[in-house]
Formats: sequence, C-alpha cells, structure tokens
Amino acid sequence: MNTEKELLDYIRNGGERFLPHVSIDCAVFGFHDNELKILLLKSKFLEDWALPGGHILRSEPLDVAAQRILNERTGLNDIFLKQFQSFGDPNRVSADNMNYLKEVLKVPLATDHWLLDRTISIGYYALVEFSRVNPILDYFTARYQWWDVHDLPSLVFDHALMVEKALQTVRLQLNYQPVGYNLLPEKFTMPELQKLYETMLEKPLDRRNFQKRMLGLGILERLEERKKVGPHKSPYYYRFNRKKYQEALSAGLSFGF
Amino acid sequence: MNTEKELLDYIRNGGERFLPHVSIDCAVFGFHDNELKILLLKSKFLEDWALPGGHILRSEPLDVAAQRILNERTGLNDIFLKQFQSFGDPNRVSADNMNYLKEVLKVPLATDHWLLDRTISIGYYALVEFSRVNPILDYFTARYQWWDVHDLPSLVFDHALMVEKALQTVRLQLNYQPVGYNLLPEKFTMPELQKLYETMLEKPLDRRNFQKRMLGLGILERLEERKKVGPHKSPYYYRFNRKKYQEALSAGLSFGF
Repeated sequence: MNTEKELLDYIRNGGERFLPHVSIDCAVFGFHDNELKILLLKSKFLEDWALPGGHILRSEPLDVAAQRILNERTGLNDIFLKQFQSFGDPNRVSADNMNYLKEVLKVPLATDHWLLDRTISIGYYALVEFSRVNPILDYFTARYQWWDVHDLPSLVFDHALMVEKALQTVRLQLNYQPVGYNLLPEKFTMPELQKLYETMLEKPLDRRNFQKRMLGLGILERLEERKKVGPHKSPYYYRFNRKKYQEALSAGLSFGF
Repeated sequence: MNTEKELLDYIRNGGERFLPHVSIDCAVFGFHDNELKILLLKSKFLEDWALPGGHILRSEPLDVAAQRILNERTGLNDIFLKQFQSFGDPNRVSADNMNYLKEVLKVPLATDHWLLDRTISIGYYALVEFSRVNPILDYFTARYQWWDVHDLPSLVFDHALMVEKALQTVRLQLNYQPVGYNLLPEKFTMPELQKLYETMLEKPLDRRNFQKRMLGLGILERLEERKKVGPHKSPYYYRFNRKKYQEALSAGLSFGF
C-alpha cells in the first residue's frame, strides 16, 4: 500500500482478495552490539505502535504470505520467518480499535465490514542483525523504530502479548536450534558467540560449559586464525559449517539427549 | 454431533455459529507400556482416518475451542492440549476431499458452501496415558484406534503432515519442558522415567547422564521407598514436585544454559 488510493482500496475491497478472519503479524528481533531489540511500526492513523502485519491472499501459502507482508510493510527481504503461535482471543481486536478506519475512509463502516469481524492472527518471528537491514515504509506507516524489548511503547491490539510469546519462543529455541548465522560476522570468536547467547538469555553463562556445549553440537569449524584482542588474549576464529547448521535447523539440536 | 439431525444442521447452518476459514485439529499421543501411539478416528463417511477436529465458535477462545472439540469428538476431558502449529496450505483440503458431504446431505453443495472454502487449521497436541482414557464417539465417527506412530493408515487432508509436525514438537519439547506427569504412575523409578524418554526419542540414553540431568532439573523428589525388582536391584522411587513441575511447564526448562 504505497498510496492513499491503494489503502482505500484495501479497506473497501480487500475482503475479495484476502482471506477474512485470519491475519499474520511478524515479530522481527534485531541483535546488534549485544542488544536485543524489536522492530515496531507507528501508523499515521493510530496512537499505538504495532508489529508489521497484514492479510493472507485467498490462495497464498502461509509462509509466503508472511514474507510478502513483511516485505510490503517494511521493505525487508529474504528474512527467515518462523511461525510460532496463533492468537485468537475473541476480543483481541475490538471495534474501538478499528475506529481509525472511519477516519481514513471519512465515512462510517458497515457493521459487517470485513475488517471488523473476528480475526485470528498467526504470529511469525525472525532474528536479524539490525544494522544490516534498512526498513522502507508503506503509505500506512509514519515511522519505524527498533525498541528495546524491555522498554516497549504502548502497542495495538494484543501485540504486547505477541512480543512476549515471540521472545519466549526465541529463548526456548536456543535449546534446540542453532542461532547466530546472519547475526554474527562470517567469522567470529567464541566470546562473541557467547555474548549473543547471553544477550538473548539475559544472563551470564559459564565460559567453559558454553564452549564445551557449542563444540559438542558439531556445527562450528575452528579456523587457524586468531583474533588479536590484547597482549595475553587471542581467541580463535570460528565459522558455522553451513551444511550442518542447516541440518540442525530442520532436525533440531539435542543438547545431551 | 450425536444424531444425524445434528450433523445435517452442522453442515447446513454451521457457518452461522462457527468462524469460517479456521478449524482446529488435535494430535493426541498415547504412551503406554513403552509404546507411543496416536489417536485417530474413522468417519462413517470417509475412507481415510483423521485426527479429531472441528470448528471454532464465533466468540470462543482458541484453547477453549480445542478442549471442547476434543471432548465432543472423543469424550476426552481435562486433557492438557498445547497449540503447536497452524496449517494453511491453500490446497490442504480439496473440493474432492469434501465429496462426502454430498453423500451425507444427499444433495449437491453450493459452490460457496462454508465448508468448501479454504480453511486454515490450528494444530494442538496432547500426551496421555492411553490405558487411562476411554474415547466415546460422536455420530460422525464409526470407530477409533490408537495407531503406532510408525505404522499409520492413510489419513485425510494434510493430517499425515500434522502428525509428523506434532511428533517433532513433542520430541523437541523434551529439551525444554518437563514430561511425565499423567504418563507415569504417582511414584516411579528412574529407569521407568528413562524408558519414557527413550520411547519418545526412539533411542537408548546413557543411564548416568540421564539421571544426572533429570536430578539437575529440580523437579523430582526422591522417596525413601525402593522398588523391589530383583535380588541385586532395588531402585528408589521418585515423584514429581508438582509446584516446580508447573513452574517449569510455564517458564521452560534449561538443560545447562
């Protein structure tokens, strides 16, 4: 939706192209400089901030819809989005929440308008290195901001719950999926990888145990090169073994079992 | 749906009471005697077997709907159901799949019939001790069977994919959620608990490591009583600490991190 005309058409006629009663929202977490943030959009028409979201085309697969929606709303491309939960509280979106539509259209909405009926939203999440992505906004959106996950602004609908559940999922995921590809440089040191885990888990980890577990997963390759960080410290560089990383992504890691 | 009249009313008028485009399917895994099985239903009207499923009432929360649907379809009550994934392939249910409706109604269906439109299904799963549950079937269903997860019959729609994904989820879950309550007797031995994990993971586990990790979770209490199993073996009984088990269920376990 890059023009007012497109937005009006979406509100008026979207019900023909899109599946009613279902939407998708994307929680995009950004890791940078040992901070974990989340991408939120501020609409021109709403007071509160929101996750990038939208509707599913009538014959579009869910994962394709998630990619398209994130792209249309933020310009982000080729982001690995993963479904984590569907949100279906009958009151998650109230008629009041949709009052802004009246302002946009400048006429009252029919009570059976497709955007006023109950909508279940399917949540997707992604992890990106946020200095490497550059959001481009659509007509609906006034601005974007990467927010600290502990210091969120007021959010629309049930989006605060979505962020909370997405964050829980990301942290649990550390127990069974490899993390780090796309978040770290091509080659990185063990302390840098540990910092990523510590940032996401928000707690310090034991250096020896961490190293032992990580190496035990078989997804890392140690390079012959060391990083010079001080007179007495020069940790080895590592990189991910792409093939094993991909295998672990689909099969799941097992830390011990 | 306990009578033909109710079934006909569901097909003809269900679209008024239920949210169109969305359904729920339940993968109920049964553990018994070191076997992992899944509960499938055989409809009177379909060749293939199916997971118990149904539609969401217009103002019903998702988790409530999942409980109600499982109860109406199988008589099962108070089962801890957990959402795991939504399935939304545009072709997951074809018009052909719904031919049986014509047979039931004995008249052709309108092409815009509420049951013929694209439906996204939200998958829930549960783990039960299957000797303790006793399914009671509805009018739609001819019989039920607990099937070996490796030897499934032909399944309707995308239900084979659902079973596969649910099983993956259950196995990953062992890495971050406590399992065993409701599947084991009130008091059990460490070898019995290990058997449960081995059955679900389908591989043998090292006895010492298993015991060390389990005790490290802090959810088990060792009783003073031992089980007599042989002249030289008498393992201690354990039980779950209900409070810590519940805490771990919501917060997630961490095996090491």
